[in-house]
Amino acid sequence: MTAGTINWTESFASRAARMNASEIRELLKLLDQPDVISFAGGIPDPALFPAQAISEAYTSVLIDKVKSAQALQYSVSEGYLPLRRWIAGQMARQGVPCTEANVMITAGSQQGLDFIGKLFLSPGDTALVTAPTYLGALQAFNAYEPRYDRLTLEGGNRTPESYRLAAAERGGRVGLAYLVPDFSNPTGETVPLAARQGLLDLAAALDTVVIEDAAYQALRYDGTPVPSLLALDVERSGGIERTRTLFCGTFSKTLAPALRVGWVCGAAEVIAKLVLVKQAADLHCATINQMVMHEVAEKVFEPQVARIREAYRQRRDLMLAALARHMPAGVSWTRPEGGMFVWVTLPAHIDGAALLARAVGECRVAFVPGKAFYGEGAVGNKLRLSYSLSNEAAINEGIARLGGLIGSLAAAA
Amino acid sequence: MTAGTINWTESFASRAARMNASEIRELLKLLDQPDVISFAGGIPDPALFPAQAISEAYTSVLIDKVKSAQALQYSVSEGYLPLRRWIAGQMARQGVPCTEANVMITAGSQQGLDFIGKLFLSPGDTALVTAPTYLGALQAFNAYEPRYDRLTLEGGNRTPESYRLAAAERGGRVGLAYLVPDFSNPTGETVPLAARQGLLDLAAALDTVVIEDAAYQALRYDGTPVPSLLALDVERSGGIERTRTLFCGTFSKTLAPALRVGWVCGAAEVIAKLVLVKQAADLHCATINQMVMHEVAEKVFEPQVARIREAYRQRRDLMLAALARHMPAGVSWTRPEGGMFVWVTLPAHIDGAALLARAVGECRVAFVPGKAFYGEGAVGNKLRLSYSLSNEAAINEGIARLGGLIGSLAAAA
Repeated sequence: MTAGTINWTESFASRAARMNASEIRELLKLLDQPDVISFAGGIPDPALFPAQAISEAYTSVLIDKVKSAQALQYSVSEGYLPLRRWIAGQMARQGVPCTEANVMITAGSQQGLDFIGKLFLSPGDTALVTAPTYLGALQAFNAYEPRYDRLTLEGGNRTPESYRLAAAERGGRVGLAYLVPDFSNPTGETVPLAARQGLLDLAAALDTVVIEDAAYQALRYDGTPVPSLLALDVERSGGIERTRTLFCGTFSKTLAPALRVGWVCGAAEVIAKLVLVKQAADLHCATINQMVMHEVAEKVFEPQVARIREAYRQRRDLMLAALARHMPAGVSWTRPEGGMFVWVTLPAHIDGAALLARAVGECRVAFVPGKAFYGEGAVGNKLRLSYSLSNEAAINEGIARLGGLIGSLAAAA
Repeated sequence: MTAGTINWTESFASRAARMNASEIRELLKLLDQPDVISFAGGIPDPALFPAQAISEAYTSVLIDKVKSAQALQYSVSEGYLPLRRWIAGQMARQGVPCTEANVMITAGSQQGLDFIGKLFLSPGDTALVTAPTYLGALQAFNAYEPRYDRLTLEGGNRTPESYRLAAAERGGRVGLAYLVPDFSNPTGETVPLAARQGLLDLAAALDTVVIEDAAYQALRYDGTPVPSLLALDVERSGGIERTRTLFCGTFSKTLAPALRVGWVCGAAEVIAKLVLVKQAADLHCATINQMVMHEVAEKVFEPQVARIREAYRQRRDLMLAALARHMPAGVSWTRPEGGMFVWVTLPAHIDGAALLARAVGECRVAFVPGKAFYGEGAVGNKLRLSYSLSNEAAINEGIARLGGLIGSLAAAA
């Protein structure tokens, strides 16, 4: 910790103690200080991007006169046909037989969440979500003024009638159910098969749409893959055209986020409506980026995914080992089979946001306090640690420092 | 007209006679037949894209390891800082002194319309629009369930009280006023200074936001530039932070549409709110495309705009001359000083959609019937002709054929 950072740190520490979720996000942006070990950013490691393949694809698309004119021109709202076909092929390989009519390209999976919210939520309707959950989803839905009700997947949800009555009391219906079933942001946990079936039962009873946020799905490091909600829905209902699940996928975590290419896969009738939403919202995704993503996916998708799985698996293993080594008694954490996150539970009297202020100020370690992931009813004694951007030395040193700080706070109580 | 196209043409003709606006759009997509002379697409000529400069910029961004990691990674919702600064400089040169805090990057100007609608319209609120207008704007606003009331800029609008009462009767307030003041889509016309001032008076009296859709603004071929609504608003109110106008700009018509880079310029307080809307909707625009657009704009913007102005000016002149040569008495049209469109008024008994069916079927010429540009109260005897994609031979031959057909219909009446 250098003298030059003291004022900044003090200001951060005093603000952090009373900040809300979006303020936490803003402050975390300041953490790009070179001497801070950050487990905050839940983003992919740029050193793992297939930069060479992407660069070659831009050149290949732009060097060809015909391709170039197409790549730079307006295009259709549903997306670039060869890319939609490629994605349909991938979906088929994971138990979702479908065609390009079942796939629309979106600006990352985030835009899929926004559009589905726009289509299925009216003010006063209810969105069913887990707690904690990905706060970006709640931000997307908030624009359509829903109320939220809570899914409790593993303990068993409430009865359909109970959800329906609660929604009706507020003057609406249950518009959608949202979850990140694989290696969830923020907990890193995966929803087991029985709980997925239970959720589909509930959705069927409520006649509501299920949003499967598959942002991290490709990043499984070990354990047995659980079929996607959409695959289970296809199996139950007898074909994709009879499903109620909308699968939001993305290349952001596997290839690169900044091209903003994701997709929604679902029944063609719903996809057609989402295409009209897309047309009204921004006409279409960047044509050139879709063409490049298609070329890159065709060429390097499988080896690229294998490469990043191996890299992130090592980092997860290092972090779990470091946690076991350095965390005092009374601290527990999840053991994710994939994704980018470990979710830590502190002793009940330690607040994550207050800890962040001290961790940055006293030992130059950052993470995201758990309260950033609750719409309401936030639980204070949680943290999200991300290992996606950290090397071995940073993980060992950072977790050792954090464990020491938590240990001193636990002992002082 | 070849035998192989007859079935398609017949089917098109029979459908065209009873189609609505969005069906017209869908059908127009089918018109990429090589033997059809199309004045339908209101899109830039890909032969005029600065493809070389764009290709070089992708290479330059991706060849540098540091730039490449940034270009492929998540980035901030407000957009790439150097690009926002470049745009602020451009805005300042047109009478809008401002900084990057007044500029947010959007996926084309279309996304600006969607976000402003999201921020300023609640169900039952009123949006003030011209008739005809750009239908894509109405599609963006429709998601927020407004009612529409009509601006009559040149004849003088109704009193503020009249608009306010009409809005209140429907249970809302006037949420925004929308227009394309320069070389409007579809009419090609420019709103004169006095009418711009009148609109700002009305907006002030109603305390409502003005959306200035500047999609075609850079494409002036002759005549005297009229200050933008935002520049006039700055002048009246004493600085951009006190303005109520949101300027929606885009590189789609000047550089290339498919990178999906546009912007909103306005008071920093509103821009900050729009940034939150952007974050919830799709996180940010493609980082790489913003960096490329910045490099291309810095390098070639001025000569590129000069080049396309000259090319489109020639095509406009050719079309106006051809119309004068081939249209029968009783047909009139606008004489735009820029943009891509001429708006034609037919004799009252000729319907544009019915004419399209015959024009495609009998003489292989396409255009967009005027009724595609009205939310309601469509006027039948109008057509939009675009000259942006056509060469001299196509303009002369296509207008000659169309003039012949209209002449025969006019004579038959």
